[in-house]
Amino acid sequence: MPTVQLVDEATADPRVRAVFDDIKTTKGISRVPNYWRALAAHPEHLELVWSQAKAIMKPGKLDLLTKEMIALAVSITNSCRYCINSHTAAAQKLGMTPEQHGELLAVVGLYNQMNKLADALQVEPDILPKVE
Amino acid sequence: MPTVQLVDEATADPRVRAVFDDIKTTKGISRVPNYWRALAAHPEHLELVWSQAKAIMKPGKLDLLTKEMIALAVSITNSCRYCINSHTAAAQKLGMTPEQHGELLAVVGLYNQMNKLADALQVEPDILPKVE
Amino acid sequence: MPTVQLVDEATADPRVRAVFDDIKTTKGISRVPNYWRALAAHPEHLELVWSQAKAIMKPGKLDLLTKEMIALAVSITNSCRYCINSHTAAAQKLGMTPEQHGELLAVVGLYNQMNKLADALQVEPDILPKVE
Amino acid sequence: MPTVQLVDEATADPRVRAVFDDIKTTKGISRVPNYWRALAAHPEHLELVWSQAKAIMKPGKLDLLTKEMIALAVSITNSCRYCINSHTAAAQKLGMTPEQHGELLAVVGLYNQMNKLADALQVEPDILPKVE
Amino acid sequence: MPTVQLVDEATADPRVRAVFDDIKTTKGISRVPNYWRALAAHPEHLELVWSQAKAIMKPGKLDLLTKEMIALAVSITNSCRYCINSHTAAAQKLGMTPEQHGELLAVVGLYNQMNKLADALQVEPDILPKVE
Amino acid sequence: MPTVQLVDEATADPRVRAVFDDIKTTKGISRVPNYWRALAAHPEHLELVWSQAKAIMKPGKLDLLTKEMIALAVSITNSCRYCINSHTAAAQKLGMTPEQHGELLAVVGLYNQMNKLADALQVEPDILPKVE
Repeated sequence: MPTVQLVDEATADPRVRAVFDDIKTTKGISRVPNYWRALAAHPEHLELVWSQAKAIMKPGKLDLLTKEMIALAVSITNSCRYCINSHTAAAQKLGMTPEQHGELLAVVGLYNQMNKLADALQVEPDILPKVE
Repeated sequence: MPTVQLVDEATADPRVRAVFDDIKTTKGISRVPNYWRALAAHPEHLELVWSQAKAIMKPGKLDLLTKEMIALAVSITNSCRYCINSHTAAAQKLGMTPEQHGELLAVVGLYNQMNKLADALQVEPDILPKVE
Repeated sequence: MPTVQLVDEATADPRVRAVFDDIKTTKGISRVPNYWRALAAHPEHLELVWSQAKAIMKPGKLDLLTKEMIALAVSITNSCRYCINSHTAAAQKLGMTPEQHGELLAVVGLYNQMNKLADALQVEPDILPKVE
Repeated sequence: MPTVQLVDEATADPRVRAVFDDIKTTKGISRVPNYWRALAAHPEHLELVWSQAKAIMKPGKLDLLTKEMIALAVSITNSCRYCINSHTAAAQKLGMTPEQHGELLAVVGLYNQMNKLADALQVEPDILPKVE
Repeated sequence: MPTVQLVDEATADPRVRAVFDDIKTTKGISRVPNYWRALAAHPEHLELVWSQAKAIMKPGKLDLLTKEMIALAVSITNSCRYCINSHTAAAQKLGMTPEQHGELLAVVGLYNQMNKLADALQVEPDILPKVE
Repeated sequence: MPTVQLVDEATADPRVRAVFDDIKTTKGISRVPNYWRALAAHPEHLELVWSQAKAIMKPGKLDLLTKEMIALAVSITNSCRYCINSHTAAAQKLGMTPEQHGELLAVVGLYNQMNKLADALQVEPDILPKVE
């Protein structure tokens, strides 16, 4: 059960209404997801999070599917149930095939293992990024 | 300081030697990274981890750069210092530009925030993946 | 479903009974929460955890509401469902308003993002605490 | 070593310069911390993160010291070295005493323990927040 | 709800069938757990994960109960609900008594606390493993 | 650099002195580790943490080496550098062989992978512990 009251889509609050409308338009969906309805319990915070998400989750030097797959990898590593569902669905909508989903899971699983082994072994970095 | 003795590249152990050679050939590098030299303290485990990594980190339905960027997103979310260095470097080698790096960081940061807000708000999944 | 049998409030075990009574008195509640009934499956552990919690969660140089909000911030960052519910409720009981809840969520979300960016960028500490 | 080039404080980039100036003015400091100089490698991302941080980290229904202590609790739970240093220092600057620091550490330690016990025991939430 | 279709035990896919049969024989169980039926949505990944798990989870220099208890400690620290259930059950089947379970929980809780205090205090390692 | 002043072993504070003496006697060591010297900045907290650790880390239904290996598994999963060092050393002192260390690392790595795959696949628990 949510820890705040979900705000109704038909809310009279103009700030919330504006964000809800922008979410539906930007994402091409007809209903406001529960996540945003819950955040709307705090309108100023809703605006901050949505404006940041909108600015970041647009096609850029990385295409949107790649961004969604990165979001899914983060959500799995954080064990966030809501987010795993919604980013799996979003990536599918953008064209992620079952085979690509399988490869993504394999990479995420592998590095959750290899990350912890690196920590356990306390190896010092020897492969450094190029910084110019 | 590593918690095990790093195995010398010129080790006489034939099992370890075979993996070291395969690592250098597969990755096109001339030296064995510290990570693998540390894992080699336990040869059977080295073989298991390397064979798995080799099977997963090859081009498939996802290209190798996408896989490396997913690996980097996992490593950042896990705060693994060695891994962040090596996957940033590996992605650069595969062509990741500074602009793409910046977009990746933005997505990873955003969803580390949004994941925790979803947990805090305890919203129930309403965007479900298509399962067929 | 719990992984241990919840101990009945009316248990005959005098050690458990003493802790249960102390929990109800200290917290001013009439029923023992599931958490403590589950811990009671191991009476010695119950005593250790409760005596520690009681010693820490009393007003001191930080008031109790501040301590509960810190507990909530930890619970969100750890994605602990039971704990997020109970600490949100406990903070409300101590007077946390919806607006304060919203600000707490904003801070917790922000730093889950900024923490991971600091890890990703591998910046060295340059703002050090005063240690005297 | 940072994974990006830290941007010089005297950068000619007007967008970065504006953020740097705002950081110094808002925080009342004379030098730009490494964190922000690293984020500045990606100016648009710098603007997004800074504008969000500035909007959230101002006195509101929670005072600034409480917000900094929440930020510190999050940073410890995430094991973020840079962030633990900078938020300990920031809280000290806002008046956190050594005794308050000790109590904060005690609460953060306690709930990192109790959170995991709740997960281990799989207890169902029975203390629910008031949602109206 | 799973994010992939669970593969039927009676699947016609010979690779998946071979793994399913091996799982049942190796573990001495009559039904394939949901976990493996979900992984089977990606047969190559199923083979990789199962062959690794089989190679690691056999009696060696550590007995199987100790390995299961380590697996349970990891699963609790990662807050993995499915895994906490299945490893608690597996350890019980191998002889873990309720008293041992209680001691394991106490150790896992204690070090989740002490780990975070070590991070908060930023103490430098002074107790180093012997590396020869 | 620690975020608090390490307390000198020869401190005049009788409460801290008593704990320091007990640590040295109980562990059979001649110097107080940095961890405890840092915690001693807050004497009441030092007493709480030490008394809890002492009560839990004694031989019981699980022997001390098993408990140290569980502590190490937790510390690796939490990526706690100080703790990985000290628990690897402590387990070695209690007799952990390099081969056992290797098996422990393999189990810890495996389940960090398998935990995240379980989360990604969102499988419902079907292997439940026996609760009586």
